[in-house]
Amino acid sequence: MQSTDVALLKTLCGIFAPSGNESSLTTYLIDYVNEHKATWKVQPELIYGDEFQDCLILKFGQPKTAIFAHLDSIGFTVRYENQLVPIGGPETETGYILVGQDSMGPIECKLKDEDGHLFYDFGRGIESGTDLVFKSDFRETKDYVQSCYMDNRLGVYNALKVAETLENGLIIFSCWEEHGGGTVPFLCKWMYENHQIKQALVSDITWITEGVTHGNGVAISLRDMSIPRREYVDKIVALADASGINYQIEVERSGGSDGREIQLSPYPIDWCFVGAPEDNVHSPDEIVHKADIDAMVSLYQYLMKNL
Amino acid sequence: MQSTDVALLKTLCGIFAPSGNESSLTTYLIDYVNEHKATWKVQPELIYGDEFQDCLILKFGQPKTAIFAHLDSIGFTVRYENQLVPIGGPETETGYILVGQDSMGPIECKLKDEDGHLFYDFGRGIESGTDLVFKSDFRETKDYVQSCYMDNRLGVYNALKVAETLENGLIIFSCWEEHGGGTVPFLCKWMYENHQIKQALVSDITWITEGVTHGNGVAISLRDMSIPRREYVDKIVALADASGINYQIEVERSGGSDGREIQLSPYPIDWCFVGAPEDNVHSPDEIVHKADIDAMVSLYQYLMKNL
Amino acid sequence: MQSTDVALLKTLCGIFAPSGNESSLTTYLIDYVNEHKATWKVQPELIYGDEFQDCLILKFGQPKTAIFAHLDSIGFTVRYENQLVPIGGPETETGYILVGQDSMGPIECKLKDEDGHLFYDFGRGIESGTDLVFKSDFRETKDYVQSCYMDNRLGVYNALKVAETLENGLIIFSCWEEHGGGTVPFLCKWMYENHQIKQALVSDITWITEGVTHGNGVAISLRDMSIPRREYVDKIVALADASGINYQIEVERSGGSDGREIQLSPYPIDWCFVGAPEDNVHSPDEIVHKADIDAMVSLYQYLMKNL
Repeated sequence: MQSTDVALLKTLCGIFAPSGNESSLTTYLIDYVNEHKATWKVQPELIYGDEFQDCLILKFGQPKTAIFAHLDSIGFTVRYENQLVPIGGPETETGYILVGQDSMGPIECKLKDEDGHLFYDFGRGIESGTDLVFKSDFRETKDYVQSCYMDNRLGVYNALKVAETLENGLIIFSCWEEHGGGTVPFLCKWMYENHQIKQALVSDITWITEGVTHGNGVAISLRDMSIPRREYVDKIVALADASGINYQIEVERSGGSDGREIQLSPYPIDWCFVGAPEDNVHSPDEIVHKADIDAMVSLYQYLMKNL
Repeated sequence: MQSTDVALLKTLCGIFAPSGNESSLTTYLIDYVNEHKATWKVQPELIYGDEFQDCLILKFGQPKTAIFAHLDSIGFTVRYENQLVPIGGPETETGYILVGQDSMGPIECKLKDEDGHLFYDFGRGIESGTDLVFKSDFRETKDYVQSCYMDNRLGVYNALKVAETLENGLIIFSCWEEHGGGTVPFLCKWMYENHQIKQALVSDITWITEGVTHGNGVAISLRDMSIPRREYVDKIVALADASGINYQIEVERSGGSDGREIQLSPYPIDWCFVGAPEDNVHSPDEIVHKADIDAMVSLYQYLMKNL
Repeated sequence: MQSTDVALLKTLCGIFAPSGNESSLTTYLIDYVNEHKATWKVQPELIYGDEFQDCLILKFGQPKTAIFAHLDSIGFTVRYENQLVPIGGPETETGYILVGQDSMGPIECKLKDEDGHLFYDFGRGIESGTDLVFKSDFRETKDYVQSCYMDNRLGVYNALKVAETLENGLIIFSCWEEHGGGTVPFLCKWMYENHQIKQALVSDITWITEGVTHGNGVAISLRDMSIPRREYVDKIVALADASGINYQIEVERSGGSDGREIQLSPYPIDWCFVGAPEDNVHSPDEIVHKADIDAMVSLYQYLMKNL
């Protein structure tokens, strides 16, 4: 069994990276990988730069399967006056603390929701176009971790933990997932044209529901708003059975992920969403059971070897 | 004039192939083509396998135009307990009979719609993630055929009938059309990059409306939610006029097909929806006039020669 | 400072080119460019034809940045009887004058909106599938120009004015922007694969709002329904500051442009919407301040040199 590296997860949850504005997290990850890779089983090649916008790819050995983990988070953009417009679909409770920065300096303000119209409450005006995110208040108990942005810093964390022992595979950190997408298309193009990768796993966080509950393992999603190819998800479930790792089957009607963009890409790439479940989705209080995180890392390790 | 091959159509309507889970129908078609192609005017090359997921392409001679016929049908996925979520947009009347299979064996159950929440009624629980489809009750009268899944087994049937005399062209059997798409992008890529195909016909079934009625010929759609390029649809209408075959002009505001994905592909491929109309859309009682089926086959034969 | 070439703008506003039916405007532009290019600083290469559907590309020197201007307009398609369905999202006030043509001759009729159901009022029936557009009533005052289709004939006008002095760059006239898109994907493919273009500017018209007003300069949009990459829009704002040209920052939650399709293309192309604002959007009375038009042309000239 794994033991959750809470310090790393806490750091990730506190990095500013709303959709379209992910470069701080990209830079953090490049530095993190360069510092840690010497201790990893296989040294990955780091692929990034202009042709990848703010994405980062780690290439290990001879890849056959790709892990997608999106970097970006939900948040808010300052419109005019004290108005805000959402980035992605954030919960909007009056009193939530938002942070960011404009040319006048750092910002820590409060969110106000008046009948669905969003405003900030701050001692000065904030420049139009400034992005704000939830302030991270990271909490840990014996069984749980809690903060904004478990979705998807936990998916990123999972990828970094899997990286430690990964021999063959791609780890792809994508952008814009929470707000319309746009990097998965060129990432699919790159990975298919250069490495003929036809298998993807989406390392992202899902929802606690009546069928998926805390502490019962990582969720394998058989569908959400999109329907992955049955042959592929059946193979993953069969491997999960063989692994002995705790997992839960998820079946939903709504919700989407990088998987949707993989499916719509002009490449025959199969995908499956595999991730720990959280409660209080898209709020500053996203909460996940540590055992589900550990099951997530373990199952990814197993799948990347056996898929 | 053609004469409808009712036995083949009946068989096609009864094959289990909801979106994402089309492989039984793919296998059936591969076998069918291999058994029958010796009697066809031109022997097509069969193209399928891993790089095409569950799609199948038939290549005849020097192709200039492609026929797209989607294999998949609407249906339902078992969620938790006795809940169902839809695949595509099925009609949901309490009492409709659904069939499928899970690891415990074959399933024949009843659909229940309680204020838009969907359930199944069956003697045992069904495994989460199991797909169910309408049970085919195929009916034939002098003028009509009726069953679930005329949409789009009739489009598949049309393609197979056209195949018998086709000299040059592609027939492309796609997947996932009823639920978000995802194979047309790589199919367009393949057909454009390998054969520079710029012309497509969408072999699919449309709706009886105040402007498109039973027995008045195949419908040529000038638009639905998407608008095909005027120059191309004008050419098709002019050919239809020249052919002497019965046709009806369709103009709608909503509804979509593989045509939408062809238009959005990064290739300059024109498309036009040409198909017989049905009533009782997306129910177990889809009904089509035989003369419209025969007009559909005849017009495709003419267009594939003259376009 | 520029001085608005009102005659050219007026001509452009009167050309029939609803989405999917743009070829008249394409032909006009090819002729216009061939007639005027001798007087331009650099002679562009004209790229068009079958592989580009009804699009047109002008290539100047060694291009590094592309200007996208969509040709198509909103409008209406005749359905059955005297019914109309919209092309894109037009305003629909009873009494608006619509023009078009079918096989029986030219049409000038009136729009009727009865509780959201649209009809035409004309002395004879119009053939199903006929496209109709607003009749242009071009008005000019000291400060303003007004007509239908400022969106986007003004974006086209801007591109043609920038063309006069452009040394390096692509000008891309796209189609279908108002109704679902479909040409930007293959245009991106062409420009990236042939010229490795990673920078785009969307030459289109935006809305007067509480934050963007008449006469205060061209709008630089930091976001609409899509969020462009922050690093790129920051660079454009910094250049606009350096240029001394009047501009306004726009931040919206809704609205889309060719930018959305550029973002979703499988190429790492940055985009930013830069355009004059109008009032009475998508009506026959779209009105724009001349100073904002001149600022638009000036800023594009500056950006194409310095980006």
